[in-house]
Amino acid sequence: MAKATLTISSKNYSSWSLRGWLLCKLAGLDFKEKVLSIDDPSARAELLLLSPSFKVPALTHGDITVWDTLAIAEYLNEVVADARLLPEDLAARTHCRAVSGEMHSGFANLRAALPMNLKAFHPNFKVWAGAQADIDHVVSIWRTCLDSYGGPFLFGKSPTMADAMFAPVCTRFRTYDVKLDRKCDAYCDRIISTPPMIEWIAAAKAEPEELEELDVEF
Amino acid sequence: MAKATLTISSKNYSSWSLRGWLLCKLAGLDFKEKVLSIDDPSARAELLLLSPSFKVPALTHGDITVWDTLAIAEYLNEVVADARLLPEDLAARTHCRAVSGEMHSGFANLRAALPMNLKAFHPNFKVWAGAQADIDHVVSIWRTCLDSYGGPFLFGKSPTMADAMFAPVCTRFRTYDVKLDRKCDAYCDRIISTPPMIEWIAAAKAEPEELEELDVEF
Repeated sequence: MAKATLTISSKNYSSWSLRGWLLCKLAGLDFKEKVLSIDDPSARAELLLLSPSFKVPALTHGDITVWDTLAIAEYLNEVVADARLLPEDLAARTHCRAVSGEMHSGFANLRAALPMNLKAFHPNFKVWAGAQADIDHVVSIWRTCLDSYGGPFLFGKSPTMADAMFAPVCTRFRTYDVKLDRKCDAYCDRIISTPPMIEWIAAAKAEPEELEELDVEF
Repeated sequence: MAKATLTISSKNYSSWSLRGWLLCKLAGLDFKEKVLSIDDPSARAELLLLSPSFKVPALTHGDITVWDTLAIAEYLNEVVADARLLPEDLAARTHCRAVSGEMHSGFANLRAALPMNLKAFHPNFKVWAGAQADIDHVVSIWRTCLDSYGGPFLFGKSPTMADAMFAPVCTRFRTYDVKLDRKCDAYCDRIISTPPMIEWIAAAKAEPEELEELDVEF
């Protein structure tokens, strides 16, 4: 079987690409990356926050091409031995899917007001009320999980799909200087300092600034 | 074990409630309904399209409470014998999750411009370009599935979670008089005429018009 290929867009701006990539890394999949240029209309629309992209991330593995972040997670969890993207316990697994699903479909204000931008740092960024409500809800989810399962990851000792879903939020909280309680602050540090995140963030910072030509403010 | 309870909001307006309810019906779960009033802030925000609700639909089953539509689907598929919410074949199952995931996180223009309203009918409704792009993408997904798996449902002979995810779209296409090709038109008819949909739509039409007091146009 040919090596798996994950298609992504900008490492600096595309939070969905980061989620898909991190899921593959966490699952231990051996894969290569294909990075779409912003000349691709789908990647462009996604990066401009015009529409969610239906093309990235997408994973081609043997005869199967799977897109949509949650579908990629479920696929990897089924086919990669020891992927461990979902907890073994039914109640914890169900909880993990529920909070992953919330991140997948919700938090529109957080996405719009605090877009992922790994090169940037905005000290004392002013968060408007709608986005603050989303931040409060993220914090509430994290606290419940860290308290219930004992950390250091959301569902216990090893990372799951939920950590991958929230990883771009950890970077946003740092980029926009969002103040957090001690426990959530430590969780952000933990995610950002995992080896795959260090690798991704370094690549994002080294990415050419193609989007400048689009004359868009993020 | 006490009978399962599904918490939902308006049957006329809440497309997420319909999806959760339909998943329980398709899985063959024995459950009772708890309908939240619009006085509940969460239900109110959802119905006003201010934010996705994190509270509806929610299923309580024994010791487990599960929210988020996709998490409910995966849960039911795991615990209810013969739920058959996902295809047995890995490639089809993965495809089913991918298109369900697209409906879960995408189609914002379609949601905003053509909100579910089972009591209404808008002949020759003028669809703006952004929503039309979403409609075209839905049609493309449906055609691919109906052609690949032979119908009459998206993934073959029996309905899956994907049909539940797209069921509110079928009602929107009727409410807003969206013109479809013959194959997609027949698919809408098929979904709307399944016994659970007939039951839901009748209940929606009989629902008191609480939202009038909110002075909102849908």
